[in-house]
Amino acid sequence: MSNHSNQAILLVHCLDKKGLIQVITKFLSDHNGNIVDLDEHVEKSAEVFFFRVQWEMEGFDLDRNEIHSAFEKEVASKHDMTWQIHFADQKLRMAIFVSKSSHCLYDILSRYYSGEWNIEIPLIVSNHQLHKQIGDRYNIPFHYFEVNGMNKSEVELNQLKLLKEHKVDFIILARYMQILSSDFIAEFRNRIINIHHSFLPAFAGAKPYHRAYERGVKVIGATSHYVTEDLDDGPIIEQDVVKISHKDSVDTLIRKGKDLEKIVLSRAIWAHIQRKTLVYRNKTIVFD
Amino acid sequence: MSNHSNQAILLVHCLDKKGLIQVITKFLSDHNGNIVDLDEHVEKSAEVFFFRVQWEMEGFDLDRNEIHSAFEKEVASKHDMTWQIHFADQKLRMAIFVSKSSHCLYDILSRYYSGEWNIEIPLIVSNHQLHKQIGDRYNIPFHYFEVNGMNKSEVELNQLKLLKEHKVDFIILARYMQILSSDFIAEFRNRIINIHHSFLPAFAGAKPYHRAYERGVKVIGATSHYVTEDLDDGPIIEQDVVKISHKDSVDTLIRKGKDLEKIVLSRAIWAHIQRKTLVYRNKTIVFD
Amino acid sequence: MSNHSNQAILLVHCLDKKGLIQVITKFLSDHNGNIVDLDEHVEKSAEVFFFRVQWEMEGFDLDRNEIHSAFEKEVASKHDMTWQIHFADQKLRMAIFVSKSSHCLYDILSRYYSGEWNIEIPLIVSNHQLHKQIGDRYNIPFHYFEVNGMNKSEVELNQLKLLKEHKVDFIILARYMQILSSDFIAEFRNRIINIHHSFLPAFAGAKPYHRAYERGVKVIGATSHYVTEDLDDGPIIEQDVVKISHKDSVDTLIRKGKDLEKIVLSRAIWAHIQRKTLVYRNKTIVFD
Amino acid sequence: MSNHSNQAILLVHCLDKKGLIQVITKFLSDHNGNIVDLDEHVEKSAEVFFFRVQWEMEGFDLDRNEIHSAFEKEVASKHDMTWQIHFADQKLRMAIFVSKSSHCLYDILSRYYSGEWNIEIPLIVSNHQLHKQIGDRYNIPFHYFEVNGMNKSEVELNQLKLLKEHKVDFIILARYMQILSSDFIAEFRNRIINIHHSFLPAFAGAKPYHRAYERGVKVIGATSHYVTEDLDDGPIIEQDVVKISHKDSVDTLIRKGKDLEKIVLSRAIWAHIQRKTLVYRNKTIVFD
Repeated sequence: MSNHSNQAILLVHCLDKKGLIQVITKFLSDHNGNIVDLDEHVEKSAEVFFFRVQWEMEGFDLDRNEIHSAFEKEVASKHDMTWQIHFADQKLRMAIFVSKSSHCLYDILSRYYSGEWNIEIPLIVSNHQLHKQIGDRYNIPFHYFEVNGMNKSEVELNQLKLLKEHKVDFIILARYMQILSSDFIAEFRNRIINIHHSFLPAFAGAKPYHRAYERGVKVIGATSHYVTEDLDDGPIIEQDVVKISHKDSVDTLIRKGKDLEKIVLSRAIWAHIQRKTLVYRNKTIVFD
Repeated sequence: MSNHSNQAILLVHCLDKKGLIQVITKFLSDHNGNIVDLDEHVEKSAEVFFFRVQWEMEGFDLDRNEIHSAFEKEVASKHDMTWQIHFADQKLRMAIFVSKSSHCLYDILSRYYSGEWNIEIPLIVSNHQLHKQIGDRYNIPFHYFEVNGMNKSEVELNQLKLLKEHKVDFIILARYMQILSSDFIAEFRNRIINIHHSFLPAFAGAKPYHRAYERGVKVIGATSHYVTEDLDDGPIIEQDVVKISHKDSVDTLIRKGKDLEKIVLSRAIWAHIQRKTLVYRNKTIVFD
Repeated sequence: MSNHSNQAILLVHCLDKKGLIQVITKFLSDHNGNIVDLDEHVEKSAEVFFFRVQWEMEGFDLDRNEIHSAFEKEVASKHDMTWQIHFADQKLRMAIFVSKSSHCLYDILSRYYSGEWNIEIPLIVSNHQLHKQIGDRYNIPFHYFEVNGMNKSEVELNQLKLLKEHKVDFIILARYMQILSSDFIAEFRNRIINIHHSFLPAFAGAKPYHRAYERGVKVIGATSHYVTEDLDDGPIIEQDVVKISHKDSVDTLIRKGKDLEKIVLSRAIWAHIQRKTLVYRNKTIVFD
Repeated sequence: MSNHSNQAILLVHCLDKKGLIQVITKFLSDHNGNIVDLDEHVEKSAEVFFFRVQWEMEGFDLDRNEIHSAFEKEVASKHDMTWQIHFADQKLRMAIFVSKSSHCLYDILSRYYSGEWNIEIPLIVSNHQLHKQIGDRYNIPFHYFEVNGMNKSEVELNQLKLLKEHKVDFIILARYMQILSSDFIAEFRNRIINIHHSFLPAFAGAKPYHRAYERGVKVIGATSHYVTEDLDDGPIIEQDVVKISHKDSVDTLIRKGKDLEKIVLSRAIWAHIQRKTLVYRNKTIVFD
């Protein structure tokens, strides 16, 4: 389905009980909404209900600024729901943070320019000058921040200021090799997506390909997750692997891993911009 | 979720229009049904609505023999729905048809005896004596039918008679090398599952591994589908592939393919016995 | 292993018989060559011997222009071998042919500029103006050829002239939607690589994603192959697939397929520039 | 290639230097051996040379008991090689150790009885009575050993005695839930194959599926490895994964994992009985 059409998306979670789907779908049909996509999940162990519904705004008898109060009053408040609403035609604004590896940056920009994603990319942030030319090549402002042992918090404050100026909705760490502070993360809770070059929880932290080589594994992987205060331990959005053999050196693992990282990160970005992800505790529901 | 608990499963399809989910979920909540699983799909191109819902019978205020008329009267008749209802604790009775290859037969019986599937296997049918001992080993009646150029329709009549005697619900062609007649298929419409040893539509018909070898493909596959009058052209339930290389001979393709056939067929059987499949035209909706 | 180091690569095939590996390795050790990689394959059915060996030129007592005659005289002529020699530090020159889809073009250029491949890309050829800006963005000459019903052979002659001027070694059809003539193909025998957006031999020809959708397959694929006179029937270099479901529309198949096409094509290019491919009859040996 | 034909297999490793392949292939051609398969690998980082060659004994001018001394004298001793020789028609004798899970046991026995593997299975060993009937069904002696906190070393001694009586070549831990002592492992160094139900090194130890569920991973895996003194840390032979989603419960992970465990274990067994595995330090070379 087109991702920039005139449609609304509602994401809900609350304690599970009877009739929840019915009350939400009743709300939509009472207001003459035509559902184009609906998915639900009940986490049995936690007895939590997760729900995503997408419907056409054309013909819907509430306009965009009426939906909030109406849904809160008629449904959410009665069932103690946590919820959010989005409109498919609102372009999300994405910032890219990158260090020295450029393969994910190139892949993201290629998808952006070929029109694969309905987003805006107002800026690239880096702790290295290295890829300024890539930003220039694509006419995207490239902001270099020199990071050293002393100035980390100051740099983050400047970065946050810049992100606010550019109205950034979410951040992609496209192989960004700096650890973000809790304060920074708190400003973009569940809106910072990282790509880690291993199948987590294996090989969290530094040099995963070297450690994979040392261990003699027969598959390598990549993991895309929302960033939390715990390094490489945030809610996982997407993972995939590729088979390797004894013939692979660290160099070939890195080469093969790059393709994996690009694909896994791009799938996670796609799920996020489709508003198909819901974070609960340290897990991610990814409606498909 | 346990597949032999006291739950009902409703499968519906009809022309798509507004409010369908709401009327069905309202029916369930009006009768105090607790939904444990719900999935829907709208085929945009055909404007057809597909729906599967599973709910707990405990506390539901209609008993099993009341549901039919109630749902027909209160919902289905008003929206011209095609629908079926199942109860998760009803064990389906499955017949296995096999010829000379035994790997799928062994795999099915292993899953059956290890309790992986909640079904009954009242009989094995074969056009060869070869695997009678396997039936004996597992104490499953093995019925041999000599098939020759002359007696095909007579054999099928006897097979159908036998299947009715054993109240067989569905048939697995576990590498059964006979082509079934239209009359036979009509008796088990969408209830005969075949495994074909290629990724259909490639290499339909005879000797797919030989032809894959000849063509020099770099992946081989297997396809499980419902049997129709058109050979290897029925609605596909499940497919998977495995990578191969120039090093593979026809023999190694056959060896590697066997594992694929076992897995693909068993996934299709699982989907079928979970009542997660819906056939529409020549396609299969497989709710996951 | 680094692909621009001072190493030689020998590719051989001939009728299989005893001692072939020994005579070749003896030749290398007699001339003080240190083998860094060796792979062989015997096609049992055809009784053909395929061989690839890579060794360090440092310390080897024949220089580059002596190897030809020496190997021909001392080995190849005695065993009626078909063979070719390459030097890993010789950059291959690759031309990209593209039509309207840009995802493969972007992916190739990204890999090129991030230094993933040790090649030169002197030009892009297209039958559309559409992607001239991409060439400009990457400073690669973009050559537009208007193709119509009348001028095809004339266009091909001009293209061949251009390719010769730029000393092009091989051509990538990165979703190029024109069929090449036999004469054109003959000029670049086994040196034109196409990406087809299906798992061949399924869905050869036009609109494979539409036909995959119609058939209701549960996997889609991509195939990279050397171009021959028979459309989509050339020797396959690489194939891969991704699982899909009833939820996928033609649009989402196209979106998911793009990633597959990029990966499969890039793997084929990698194998080709590593000189790891050998074509025999209509199959490809891809040494790994 | 047929795995019970009259062929010899030589596995070698030693310090890498020039001409090693040549001296070995010269030995074979001097004695009129026809090579049917050859594979080599050089571990650059450790500068170690690994080699596997398979040749036809028919026409070879050394008989089986002459090869040892000849190869040692003419080749191995001169290059300080560690080596082993096998004959493809010698059936390996495999013992199965199992606890409560039966899926791997069933899968192994099915492959055994359908003639997929050229081996003997003289006995099944278990610390539970549970699967005695499976042994009976397949007419394989089932040996129950009651294991408690006190008698472990005594049990192992009896098991070793039994294994010697049955001339067991290697042992499969088909979901055997007992930890073997160093003494036991030393008796079958690199001849005990375990299947662990996670992609190691992730989720080593107990309840990997529960922990995978808790972590919210999007893939689960299985790993087959040779058993060493370090739990779940031995040389990996084979790994594979399957994708999962938020919809999966611990129960469905266990169900999906079973198929993975069966496939991964069977591939490892296949590699072992083909004598395609070589253990060096804590890694496994698996010639393909």
